[in-house]
Amino acid sequence: MGSSSEPGAKPPRIRLGMVGGGEGAFIGAVHRMAARLDDHYTLVAGALSATPEKALRSGLALGLAPDRLYSDFRAMAQAEAARPDGIEAVAIVTPNHLHAPAAQAFLEAGIHVICDKPVTTTSAEALALQATVERSGLLFAVTHNYSANAMVRQARELVRSGALGEIRVVQVEYPQDWLAEPLEATAQKQADWRTDPARSGAGGCVGDIGTHAFQLAEFVTGLQVHSLLAEVSTFVPGRRLDDDVQVLLRFAGGARGTLWASQVAPGHRNGLALRVYGSRGGLAWRQEQPEDLLYTPLGEPTRVIGRGAAGAGAAAQQVTRTPGGHPEGYLEAFATVYSEVAQALYARREGRRLDEAALNFPTLADGLRGVRFIETVVASGRAGGQWVALPR
Amino acid sequence: MGSSSEPGAKPPRIRLGMVGGGEGAFIGAVHRMAARLDDHYTLVAGALSATPEKALRSGLALGLAPDRLYSDFRAMAQAEAARPDGIEAVAIVTPNHLHAPAAQAFLEAGIHVICDKPVTTTSAEALALQATVERSGLLFAVTHNYSANAMVRQARELVRSGALGEIRVVQVEYPQDWLAEPLEATAQKQADWRTDPARSGAGGCVGDIGTHAFQLAEFVTGLQVHSLLAEVSTFVPGRRLDDDVQVLLRFAGGARGTLWASQVAPGHRNGLALRVYGSRGGLAWRQEQPEDLLYTPLGEPTRVIGRGAAGAGAAAQQVTRTPGGHPEGYLEAFATVYSEVAQALYARREGRRLDEAALNFPTLADGLRGVRFIETVVASGRAGGQWVALPR
Amino acid sequence: MGSSSEPGAKPPRIRLGMVGGGEGAFIGAVHRMAARLDDHYTLVAGALSATPEKALRSGLALGLAPDRLYSDFRAMAQAEAARPDGIEAVAIVTPNHLHAPAAQAFLEAGIHVICDKPVTTTSAEALALQATVERSGLLFAVTHNYSANAMVRQARELVRSGALGEIRVVQVEYPQDWLAEPLEATAQKQADWRTDPARSGAGGCVGDIGTHAFQLAEFVTGLQVHSLLAEVSTFVPGRRLDDDVQVLLRFAGGARGTLWASQVAPGHRNGLALRVYGSRGGLAWRQEQPEDLLYTPLGEPTRVIGRGAAGAGAAAQQVTRTPGGHPEGYLEAFATVYSEVAQALYARREGRRLDEAALNFPTLADGLRGVRFIETVVASGRAGGQWVALPR
Amino acid sequence: MGSSSEPGAKPPRIRLGMVGGGEGAFIGAVHRMAARLDDHYTLVAGALSATPEKALRSGLALGLAPDRLYSDFRAMAQAEAARPDGIEAVAIVTPNHLHAPAAQAFLEAGIHVICDKPVTTTSAEALALQATVERSGLLFAVTHNYSANAMVRQARELVRSGALGEIRVVQVEYPQDWLAEPLEATAQKQADWRTDPARSGAGGCVGDIGTHAFQLAEFVTGLQVHSLLAEVSTFVPGRRLDDDVQVLLRFAGGARGTLWASQVAPGHRNGLALRVYGSRGGLAWRQEQPEDLLYTPLGEPTRVIGRGAAGAGAAAQQVTRTPGGHPEGYLEAFATVYSEVAQALYARREGRRLDEAALNFPTLADGLRGVRFIETVVASGRAGGQWVALPR
Repeated sequence: MGSSSEPGAKPPRIRLGMVGGGEGAFIGAVHRMAARLDDHYTLVAGALSATPEKALRSGLALGLAPDRLYSDFRAMAQAEAARPDGIEAVAIVTPNHLHAPAAQAFLEAGIHVICDKPVTTTSAEALALQATVERSGLLFAVTHNYSANAMVRQARELVRSGALGEIRVVQVEYPQDWLAEPLEATAQKQADWRTDPARSGAGGCVGDIGTHAFQLAEFVTGLQVHSLLAEVSTFVPGRRLDDDVQVLLRFAGGARGTLWASQVAPGHRNGLALRVYGSRGGLAWRQEQPEDLLYTPLGEPTRVIGRGAAGAGAAAQQVTRTPGGHPEGYLEAFATVYSEVAQALYARREGRRLDEAALNFPTLADGLRGVRFIETVVASGRAGGQWVALPR
Repeated sequence: MGSSSEPGAKPPRIRLGMVGGGEGAFIGAVHRMAARLDDHYTLVAGALSATPEKALRSGLALGLAPDRLYSDFRAMAQAEAARPDGIEAVAIVTPNHLHAPAAQAFLEAGIHVICDKPVTTTSAEALALQATVERSGLLFAVTHNYSANAMVRQARELVRSGALGEIRVVQVEYPQDWLAEPLEATAQKQADWRTDPARSGAGGCVGDIGTHAFQLAEFVTGLQVHSLLAEVSTFVPGRRLDDDVQVLLRFAGGARGTLWASQVAPGHRNGLALRVYGSRGGLAWRQEQPEDLLYTPLGEPTRVIGRGAAGAGAAAQQVTRTPGGHPEGYLEAFATVYSEVAQALYARREGRRLDEAALNFPTLADGLRGVRFIETVVASGRAGGQWVALPR
Repeated sequence: MGSSSEPGAKPPRIRLGMVGGGEGAFIGAVHRMAARLDDHYTLVAGALSATPEKALRSGLALGLAPDRLYSDFRAMAQAEAARPDGIEAVAIVTPNHLHAPAAQAFLEAGIHVICDKPVTTTSAEALALQATVERSGLLFAVTHNYSANAMVRQARELVRSGALGEIRVVQVEYPQDWLAEPLEATAQKQADWRTDPARSGAGGCVGDIGTHAFQLAEFVTGLQVHSLLAEVSTFVPGRRLDDDVQVLLRFAGGARGTLWASQVAPGHRNGLALRVYGSRGGLAWRQEQPEDLLYTPLGEPTRVIGRGAAGAGAAAQQVTRTPGGHPEGYLEAFATVYSEVAQALYARREGRRLDEAALNFPTLADGLRGVRFIETVVASGRAGGQWVALPR
Repeated sequence: MGSSSEPGAKPPRIRLGMVGGGEGAFIGAVHRMAARLDDHYTLVAGALSATPEKALRSGLALGLAPDRLYSDFRAMAQAEAARPDGIEAVAIVTPNHLHAPAAQAFLEAGIHVICDKPVTTTSAEALALQATVERSGLLFAVTHNYSANAMVRQARELVRSGALGEIRVVQVEYPQDWLAEPLEATAQKQADWRTDPARSGAGGCVGDIGTHAFQLAEFVTGLQVHSLLAEVSTFVPGRRLDDDVQVLLRFAGGARGTLWASQVAPGHRNGLALRVYGSRGGLAWRQEQPEDLLYTPLGEPTRVIGRGAAGAGAAAQQVTRTPGGHPEGYLEAFATVYSEVAQALYARREGRRLDEAALNFPTLADGLRGVRFIETVVASGRAGGQWVALPR
């Protein structure tokens, strides 16, 4: 497969492993499709479940070889590190509480990590990972996939270009409705662990989706939140974690913002939306209609900038696969994260220097920031809604 | 004109006066069109300006008789009260600081009052008006026009019916962009007084439009805010009042909400929007597209309920003029306030008893609540964003 | 009321009569609201019904004096013409078959006419009216109200300016759903006469709404259809007139278009919509969301031009009452027709010369063209869908 | 890779070849991503270009082995048929005129075919292919990808269930704007061959996109068009094929419809849209916002049925990858065609019987029908817009 010695030939696909993502999982399949779409990876090993029988069954159903299927991620890390054809990178798609131990195991085995969010359940864990990453020099990506949407990149480029002037107001929201009833009481797998502090961490809704909203706001504006105040609510009786947070954000430079994340908002499937207003213009983007960016230069009509169409700039073009009007969506943006990571991994494999920051994929630094956001929101909520500084 | 003695005949139109609304004004013309639309009023007198020459010129241009044109509202109140054909009600459409003295003058002359919002610049003034109203038994309406939109009435009816279950989350916003630059520096009349504390009161954006958003949220949900926390910002350099407020709301019964009002949000002309989420469903309404109410019963597809169309209930039908798909808008809702007030005035004129609350037009009580909202937001903002109780 | 002798004073309101529009009517109330909104008319007389008792009852309910209420429009024309304070203009809002005789009666009495559409049931009648109008020099307006929407005026201005280049394609449609079942069988008044050839004329849906679509397309493009081919269908069993027409249009200059009108299209309340495409740009307008015009210069992002907002030009501003984002709708556009007619009537009353064409209200010429459109569509349909020339 | 002997194991991927799709191509990359997404195929061979050097370069860039790269599709068919690991299926993504000879070559070599549309440039060619397919028993799929959208499947299911009653009116359109100027004059590859009769066939716009619209209308309604009348226009000077067609459709059973396809409609990127109206309800779907289906039961509010959300039935669920609100788009629908074909190919490989029709992927029969649609439209246009029967 692949013949990298030929000039102009495609480099061999990156050998990828996966931890989590067995039967009944949601996000594991997403990672696999995302890894496949642009053909930079081949999945060759997995610890898809901690239950051996289920791990084997899940792996065979994916076409993996039985000798590359594990039920213990530590064993997998060691075994794969020892193979000449062992995995080069691992995708960690378990419930949150296993992110840190799994990531540590693979980093220590010299294997690059692509980890779902929130990257850990505590900032202490994230800082420990950071130390390991710095020591090892390995790559650590976090799949804040929404920031890879082409029109989000367009938005960021517009802000950077100064088209919006000085940013004044940021409105970001992420409403869903799937937890409006106590779904966890039915043993539905996704609801079960997401509402369990032991597996999800201190944040419920704020961790599951609030972190995406937060990352998106900082990514597009290029501004950092320095303090926040949160109303943290649990509306569904018996639930152990928050299911709605309403947060005031103070950004460095003086911008003010509001972040709302909810999993009890009937009518919203996955309503991530961002609006940014500056002294010279405003913009609006909605994840459920990701192909259009609304941009209003102050005093002019609103423009609808379409992905792959007139008005889309270089940053958007770079992550565009199909012509305008041929909708790219969730998987495509997710695939962009994988493909940008692949560019970095190819370069490392070949010893090429590369400005990884220019690739725009989120890293452990974003992951750490997300965990700190969760912790700060929870702390503000516990204090009855008080201003709390967000550590840098 | 009109011959009320005939059975079945239309009652004679209500004789209306106006204070403010002369040349260059915006809202005065709106009140006049609103009063005319359903044919319950005839404008016969005015103190349209404090400048005699302008008052005369403005009145003649409206077809008023010269002897019914005044430049002093106190003189007008006395003169009209003394005429056999004097006005029965007055519309007060001046800058905010004149609402209280003008209203007092007409109330003391026995004339009903229809007043623009915010009803006064301080709650003390509003309380004084309240005492006068109670003493006199006169009617006092406040033109929170947006709550008269048919689909807002529909929303309120849905909430009341229990279709949404227990209300959990309220999201209301009112962004505009017309003050994104220091328009007041150009002597533009509307910007000039609205950014002047002496004429506008303690609130800028929060008073001008935030009060509408607040009233709408309470009107539709039937819930009262008991405390709030506000970020009060002035983004345009040199401006003396707020131009952006972001407010967390705590409602009686446990609902949590966010209110955002801004006049510096490029891309928004008049973006009042309300969303309400309960344990059994959610709804969304946008003022700029007022004909549709989105209603989602939990676990079912979103329904688009159209004014005058399938799904619209009695409360909406009652304030509907044209069939579905023949858009009613801003003036129609404003006219509904005038027409509901007219029903009350006809009844009083004829000595009929009437459940005025069922008419739904906003009263001085709403006006007082709006002023307290402004004061509480400003107090929270001055305290650096702290929780402050909102007096009942 | 009014004191026209004062300099700068508003001219006295135009004395208006009405034929049709009694109890149970729809469009009569619309005409009355439209006439009132901008305060140029006062309704003083009516033949609101041919049934004397109903005519009286309807008139009293409107506040008209009993001696100005008639049950015979011819008697009304003569009586009013004989009074010193007689009506100056009449609004004809009966079922279609009475338009011609009523209009003739008032024209012959020297009274200006404002007539609903289609102006007559045959082109012969319309030509006869035209002869009378030319002989009398009186004004004859036809209420194709949709062409008075501000954003329709904007569209026309854009086309005229050359912004779209050479027009190539026109897509216009007008779907409704209120006749998807045999409503006429229930004696619903609106359905009853509209599906009756004796009162509606040769066209059902094509006459009731197709004419609006046709007029809108020619008004905005400034191009005339020279021939057409129509599929004329009656889908509801037992119905006597068409309820769906699909028409190919050939415009002078080479543009090609499609017109679809239907009253059996579930999901559409009043879905008039126009799209125009030229060599340099395209535009789209939807009546149910009339405040926005989508304009796409070829090779640039689509712009959303809002009424009363950035990008709206002089033609739109001229017919704008409220600031952008304060929705004007159906009644406002209808009122614009009345107000433009009023400008012409004031000028005629005062002997001033005025370029009436610049006022843009539709006239008998538009009405005649609409009737010919109906006749040509019906002829094409009867021929099994063949090309038929549309007389100029 | 793959170990089909294990019970529960994923079957080995289908070995796929490709004809066309080399450097500078558009649709080839789409087919490759679509084939990869659900992991049922592995691309192992290609005749990506007729130019040997380009064929090699394109193949290496895709990671193909040099000995599986060809510049002659006939040589490829023979060589691959002779290999034990030869391709099982071929994707044909050349300009239209090569579809038929390429497909014949592979069918004759015993290789299944997945072909882009229009399947051939003449119906004679399509009939010849049909004979070969029938003789060989091989599978022949045509990538009318839009009919694989989940909400299109939902629409079809709704129609089939009788929810719309008897279908009366069909409105389908497919406007684009990328050929509004003579792009072919610039040697842009996509424009060049699509406007060249020698490579594109008798239809320009009607073949390129009109066929998609036609197939979508028949697929969703389950009705066949029996005759049509077309206005066929070429608006761009010098262009050799049509760039705009407006077509009246007569369906078996009495439904009437309009189809508009245009590549000169500024403001439209890829605006395929379908609306269907029946005696009991209506529905609307837009390809650029593919996640929502609007469904209106007559006399009830419109429902917004979301993919992966409440109201989506079995047919939609079957082709759904991600939860509602995580947008699937163009590539996902395209991938569904590939995956449905894969189910059929697996069954054939394993000798299992399978109801291929239930899989819903378009076949040569759809392809033939598309070519006949093109020919009939062109014939009607040449006759000046006359009714022409569409062969079954």
